Amino acid sequence: MTKQCDLVLEHVRIASMQKNGTPYGELTQSSVAIKNGEVLAIFDPSQENYQGNESFDGENKWLLPGFIDCHTHLVYGGNRANEFEQRLQGKTYTEIAQQGGGIQGTVNATRESSEQTLLSSAIKRAARLVEEGVTSIEVKSGYGLNMQTEIKMLKVARQIAEHLPVNIVPTYLGAHTVPKEYRSNPDDYVQFVCDQVIPAVAKQQLASCVDVFCESIGFSPMQCRKIFTAAKMHNLNVKAHVEQLSDLKGAKLAAEFAALSVDHIEYLDPKDIPALKRSDTVAVLLPGAFYYLNETQKPPVAELRANNVPIAIATDLNPGSSPIASILTIMNMASVLFSLTPEEVLYGVTVHAAKALNLPNKGQINIGKDADLCLWDIEHPAELVYGINQHRPVAKWFAGRQC
Amino acid sequence: MTKQCDLVLEHVRIASMQKNGTPYGELTQSSVAIKNGEVLAIFDPSQENYQGNESFDGENKWLLPGFIDCHTHLVYGGNRANEFEQRLQGKTYTEIAQQGGGIQGTVNATRESSEQTLLSSAIKRAARLVEEGVTSIEVKSGYGLNMQTEIKMLKVARQIAEHLPVNIVPTYLGAHTVPKEYRSNPDDYVQFVCDQVIPAVAKQQLASCVDVFCESIGFSPMQCRKIFTAAKMHNLNVKAHVEQLSDLKGAKLAAEFAALSVDHIEYLDPKDIPALKRSDTVAVLLPGAFYYLNETQKPPVAELRANNVPIAIATDLNPGSSPIASILTIMNMASVLFSLTPEEVLYGVTVHAAKALNLPNKGQINIGKDADLCLWDIEHPAELVYGINQHRPVAKWFAGRQC
Repeated sequence: MTKQCDLVLEHVRIASMQKNGTPYGELTQSSVAIKNGEVLAIFDPSQENYQGNESFDGENKWLLPGFIDCHTHLVYGGNRANEFEQRLQGKTYTEIAQQGGGIQGTVNATRESSEQTLLSSAIKRAARLVEEGVTSIEVKSGYGLNMQTEIKMLKVARQIAEHLPVNIVPTYLGAHTVPKEYRSNPDDYVQFVCDQVIPAVAKQQLASCVDVFCESIGFSPMQCRKIFTAAKMHNLNVKAHVEQLSDLKGAKLAAEFAALSVDHIEYLDPKDIPALKRSDTVAVLLPGAFYYLNETQKPPVAELRANNVPIAIATDLNPGSSPIASILTIMNMASVLFSLTPEEVLYGVTVHAAKALNLPNKGQINIGKDADLCLWDIEHPAELVYGINQHRPVAKWFAGRQC
Repeated sequence: MTKQCDLVLEHVRIASMQKNGTPYGELTQSSVAIKNGEVLAIFDPSQENYQGNESFDGENKWLLPGFIDCHTHLVYGGNRANEFEQRLQGKTYTEIAQQGGGIQGTVNATRESSEQTLLSSAIKRAARLVEEGVTSIEVKSGYGLNMQTEIKMLKVARQIAEHLPVNIVPTYLGAHTVPKEYRSNPDDYVQFVCDQVIPAVAKQQLASCVDVFCESIGFSPMQCRKIFTAAKMHNLNVKAHVEQLSDLKGAKLAAEFAALSVDHIEYLDPKDIPALKRSDTVAVLLPGAFYYLNETQKPPVAELRANNVPIAIATDLNPGSSPIASILTIMNMASVLFSLTPEEVLYGVTVHAAKALNLPNKGQINIGKDADLCLWDIEHPAELVYGINQHRPVAKWFAGRQC
């Protein structure tokens, strides 16, 4: 009996990224039936038959889930090419931050930028990711810090999806840096975040998650705890930038609040890893910032692996420490710099990245999951990690529609 | 009086990359007249007038010379994603080479590939560079090693230019590795290169330059000396891969033969730098291989700078140690990993890269030079180095024609 659907993809090799015991979750079936933007069936045409309104011949190329970039700051005003030159003259990221440059410089530019200016530059950056096969992008606020600009950023983030075939997940990152107007009383800023911005973000449904930068140049664990508590009170999930430059025990704190993810974690103490496992928190590695800041302390990959903590990879696309609009480059960096295997890297930008964003319907090719798919002209999925700028998807579908 | 030309580019900001004492060779004029594929004049329309058959409004964006990738191995068969996985398991480049993998694996695949197969994969790789603003590419042989396959590679390299708007400079690199049929008598292979292949390459004008890999896993300085001598006898220029993994004094030897360039040079002894200056040899840095092989020994940039040795940058695009088809990524790596300033990097992919290939008409915007030009929507040339995958030329001209 022939069953109806919208689209059949035929003659594809499927790296499903399911955890089914085969490398890359490779499946034996060669066809995918899509209906209403979801995968209706994965089948062998000699066994079953689906009739699509359309069909597509994959010519035995590889079909993978669309990539998920689960950590970006891609909405911002200005750019920091001038600071890049300063860093080449020997200044550290911390020194630049202390001079009122760094994040604060971008905050000024973002506050001054119109919604339209922010949107058009953000679309350009997001388009670079989309070209490479990204179908979901998390976008953090955090360059506004006052109510008006944070809300402006979150709204701009959402609007990107009206211009590109991509799913946008906005995150409220009020605790990115202490704004200059609160420099002498940072606790008052934390209070403002907890009492005013988080309730507004929750009420207007501008974000489903609250993030913090737990670091000596960011916020203390005590301040982060207050913010997490406020987030949870408003039914928002939490995630955290932790242990990037030092070990403040931010990961352990985040695990206490069942954080979706802890991000950066170069200085994570392996002793704190079991807590992440217990809280089902994803470890998000950001090799772009590690590379760009010439860091040498690597995240505890072997210990994360040994403890079965899911590892995700993201661009961290931002103007100061990771101006890298390429998920494929970041995937290569995760292998070259952090020694992840190509398979770990691909799980890191699919299933595990979906988990870091609480998107259970994305990141794998499976029945009932969203049909965000890319077709690649490669001989093996490892090739996507092995080189830089060698590949682009030869065909793409977002929510089941070719784009 | 109005003068005639083919094309006028109006309202451009010109980073000429001339060495005129201003950063990036910035010019005050805002218009460029092009005739017969060359720059006829650079002018201020309030002072002079050129009438083009066509005109193009640059909207105050930045015009730069097309980039020159002066060191690639982009014609090859197969790929080495499997070795990449092995390296992640801890094997070194040297160990893989000693096992008969590495270059030898690619040699086997290249010998077995048809001219058409080699060409179509090479075009794909070259297209990635061309998209990013590259208008000249050097392409080395060296994965054939026998007469037939080396000639096949050099012919394929040349054919790329029939398919893309790009100038190809083929280089004969017979001394890339000792082929397996000569493993017990490498000196006989050197003799074959000198007595048979170099004369054939010269006679058929397949390359203007002969390159060697002077290294313990390549060829000894004594063997390289023989090859350089043969090259010079046939009026071919020389260049050399030297001091990548150890200091064999290859740079000094190359300088003796007035080499166009010495490439890699992480282990170059600063004492040998004055010899390079005297021979007017370009130092070509290849941060891609440094990054990819997790090297820690950096080239002596400060000393090269202090001695005014021209520094060029290239992708080294190859399947084993730098599978990176992105000049823009390599430019960023040159700054981030080797601490070159953005201005040094841009000279490194324009004027200095032209010098490394003996292309005096390329690499700068100046009267009489080839009109290989790219227009960039940026606020400052440093932005091209500051990020990764953020920019593409918004318009391009190759030999004066928009492409």
